[in-house]
Amino acid sequence: MFESVELGQSISKDEFKDQEPGVRAQLLELQRELRKAKIATLVIVAGVEAAGKGDVVNRLNKWFDNRGIQTHAFWDETDEEKEHPEAWRFWKRMPARGNIGIMFGGWYWEPLRERAHGITNDAELDETSRAISEHERMLSLDGMLIIKLWFHLSRECHARRIKKRYEIQKHIKGLPGEGTGVKTYDEYLAAAERCIRLTDSGECPWHLVESDDKWFRDYSVARILIPMMQQRLDEHRNSDRRQQVHDPTIQIKDHPLTILDRVDLTASLEKEQYTEDLHKYKKKLHELSWEMYDAKRSTIIVFEGWDAAGKGGAIRRLTSAIDARLFRSISIAAPTDEEQAQHYLWRFWRHVPRAGYITVYDRSWYGRVLVERVEGYAQTYEWMRAYQEINTFEEQLVENGIVIIKFWLHISPEEQLRRFKEREEISWKQYKITEDDWRNREQWDDYKQAVKTMVEHTSTGHAPWSLIPANDKLFARIEVLKTVCQRMKDALKK
Amino acid sequence: MFESVELGQSISKDEFKDQEPGVRAQLLELQRELRKAKIATLVIVAGVEAAGKGDVVNRLNKWFDNRGIQTHAFWDETDEEKEHPEAWRFWKRMPARGNIGIMFGGWYWEPLRERAHGITNDAELDETSRAISEHERMLSLDGMLIIKLWFHLSRECHARRIKKRYEIQKHIKGLPGEGTGVKTYDEYLAAAERCIRLTDSGECPWHLVESDDKWFRDYSVARILIPMMQQRLDEHRNSDRRQQVHDPTIQIKDHPLTILDRVDLTASLEKEQYTEDLHKYKKKLHELSWEMYDAKRSTIIVFEGWDAAGKGGAIRRLTSAIDARLFRSISIAAPTDEEQAQHYLWRFWRHVPRAGYITVYDRSWYGRVLVERVEGYAQTYEWMRAYQEINTFEEQLVENGIVIIKFWLHISPEEQLRRFKEREEISWKQYKITEDDWRNREQWDDYKQAVKTMVEHTSTGHAPWSLIPANDKLFARIEVLKTVCQRMKDALKK
Repeated sequence: MFESVELGQSISKDEFKDQEPGVRAQLLELQRELRKAKIATLVIVAGVEAAGKGDVVNRLNKWFDNRGIQTHAFWDETDEEKEHPEAWRFWKRMPARGNIGIMFGGWYWEPLRERAHGITNDAELDETSRAISEHERMLSLDGMLIIKLWFHLSRECHARRIKKRYEIQKHIKGLPGEGTGVKTYDEYLAAAERCIRLTDSGECPWHLVESDDKWFRDYSVARILIPMMQQRLDEHRNSDRRQQVHDPTIQIKDHPLTILDRVDLTASLEKEQYTEDLHKYKKKLHELSWEMYDAKRSTIIVFEGWDAAGKGGAIRRLTSAIDARLFRSISIAAPTDEEQAQHYLWRFWRHVPRAGYITVYDRSWYGRVLVERVEGYAQTYEWMRAYQEINTFEEQLVENGIVIIKFWLHISPEEQLRRFKEREEISWKQYKITEDDWRNREQWDDYKQAVKTMVEHTSTGHAPWSLIPANDKLFARIEVLKTVCQRMKDALKK
Repeated sequence: MFESVELGQSISKDEFKDQEPGVRAQLLELQRELRKAKIATLVIVAGVEAAGKGDVVNRLNKWFDNRGIQTHAFWDETDEEKEHPEAWRFWKRMPARGNIGIMFGGWYWEPLRERAHGITNDAELDETSRAISEHERMLSLDGMLIIKLWFHLSRECHARRIKKRYEIQKHIKGLPGEGTGVKTYDEYLAAAERCIRLTDSGECPWHLVESDDKWFRDYSVARILIPMMQQRLDEHRNSDRRQQVHDPTIQIKDHPLTILDRVDLTASLEKEQYTEDLHKYKKKLHELSWEMYDAKRSTIIVFEGWDAAGKGGAIRRLTSAIDARLFRSISIAAPTDEEQAQHYLWRFWRHVPRAGYITVYDRSWYGRVLVERVEGYAQTYEWMRAYQEINTFEEQLVENGIVIIKFWLHISPEEQLRRFKEREEISWKQYKITEDDWRNREQWDDYKQAVKTMVEHTSTGHAPWSLIPANDKLFARIEVLKTVCQRMKDALKK
């Protein structure tokens, strides 16, 4: 693979300086247009050590207008980062729509380093590469332009530069190596070739850059960036490319009878039994939550359900059992503009708990396939794509040892009506009932279909849905507590 | 002090339950109105251990609509937090306008614990208390309602509860103590009394809550919150209270001759000398930045200056000398809505570097006293207040070991005109010149006065301004590099 960029290409400094003003004007213009089109651009700068990645980044910072451009390196991990799934640090630094983000190594750095040093094997690298590919595809479908640059040096040039580098820069030695020193040159390139092959997709292709000559190298970067940015803009002008990518053969089959009809809404609990159970499970949960903390296992608890199904009450019974230092409760409202300028999952990544902590979501990322679907806020191709995106998201969390518990609190339309009326009558409950609630109620059947498809597509082995009969509030609350206790107990056994 | 809340007051559970619906309806209504008025509310829940602070927080979460309310505990510090000034963690969690934030202990927890355990002495506690008072005053002037609750237990009740607590909760022992165990009860109360006295201001008074009886305790909380919130709303309706607080006697004396007229704009550098110096200082800076990293000392470099003064070019010469992993460059544009919903310093706190890192700000918090002042975006009382707020902010950073370097790049109006015209002619410079620039130019004298006042008020011993003659770009760039090197060198000596 890399022999294709060992051609000894070069240009003179004068030639470069001649070209630079034109290149710069074009890039600035493209940056401005991408900003106007609200397209995020991500440039991943990878390659062998000493290939001049830092110089390229400086050059790009010079060429572009530095408003709306951010450079990120991932090397000096904080323990906060260590205590989150690996993807968290990248999500945190994702360029917003209209901005340019430059990442040193990005999500490639660590997998390649580990493979080159023999910490992982080929199969593991392949798996990571496929996950990366899926991740990039998701971002790309959301409109992001991803430009991946691989800077290559010939063996001789590499050895020469490394030697020089170590002579002048004493700090290099104290830093975590890129795994591409002279001794591991071959291993690193073998890993890179493997990984590049698996992540070189149509949407997010790799570009190899011959880097022995620095003027040629930087000029090459411009010659890659300009057409990529131009092409993305053309796509944007001609149509919304996100629609085209979606596989049109997927069809949702809606049946009148759904899994929700199987929920036994007659389930109930006597007050006395409730009081006893509540005390028992709260005590249990208190202990379990501390055990989870000690074990550094996190928990994410998602509450979805019909309006007036009793989410708030169930959440309070839950959180009042847990030490306030251990949990965070997030109520999902309309996204802020910082959130809107990102992929819709971004705002949920923000709140992913540190190791050992619990996050409770009152409504969640499932809004994408519920309210956004029914109300038409998300396009069909967007919410249909969301099932897979959500499954991948949850998988990443579970792989990190996080326990995901998802509740759908189910009530009958009749019970909902009764509660709506009650809310209108009790002073401190009035705030809970709005025009929206009545409007949503009229779309009961649409929501029901949406819930059915959601459960079908996203009740996975690692993150199953618990459908809770909630016509009887007392029964529902105990069920929730019981389920959380059980899931934590299971997790601690592993 | 605390004897005033050892009166043995109590109410029965039935009485409490009778009152609760009314209380709840009032609180919900107030929450809604505060949201509409875009007023942030901060509730600080402090007091002796086992006084039931957690129960109170749960109660508040039940009473209020949980949309727009967040609870924060500060105990399990991340190393990212340890590597920032202490205030950073609080800024990160400040409630946005219209929201309610509840903080366990808030900024009081650590100082009280340290004093109770004899880690600090009275003088240190006093100093901290005064800083807290100033901090709260700043937030309050910005419109925040701060409600500080101190939950007190009599010695007997405290001893009884602590004993019970340790019997049932094995985890307590593994946690960082609040310093208020049975043995340190007296020390803790002595520290608290001292601190409460110094931070019990008119704007942010303390409320002592007798907590031996839990029903009385929670009912008391409601009786404090309701009138406080009501009063804040009344103030808001009657006028903007932020204006009233400001001392009207402060007057700015503007002289025609300012410190800027003393800057020697004829200073220049030959190209040859420039090339030599550039190489020399970049090399030096590269080494120094790594030494600063090793010493865990951070640097904040602020660039302000006239339009077209050459900030971008100077910044690039600077950052290209530093390893890209060590610095972050922030270009200050219009605030996002998340930023706008906070005190104006919040968005700068966001980017304060971790220990050992460098942040370069292209424009900064000084916008408050420059563009916002001249263009009238900030009210007079707002920008006048800003000098002190900025000084305090910078002092907090410096106390944390951060080096602050502030540059004003100065050019003459004639040189600016020449550069504007040049920009209009060169293709890749055109993006740099906008209508705004021409408009700002017409207000040269106003800006000059603003710069003068800014330097007068904010060139402090710990964070002096460097006024850089920048009619000659080469001279300015070298001056900037030289200054940064010098300041880092000085810092490393300490």
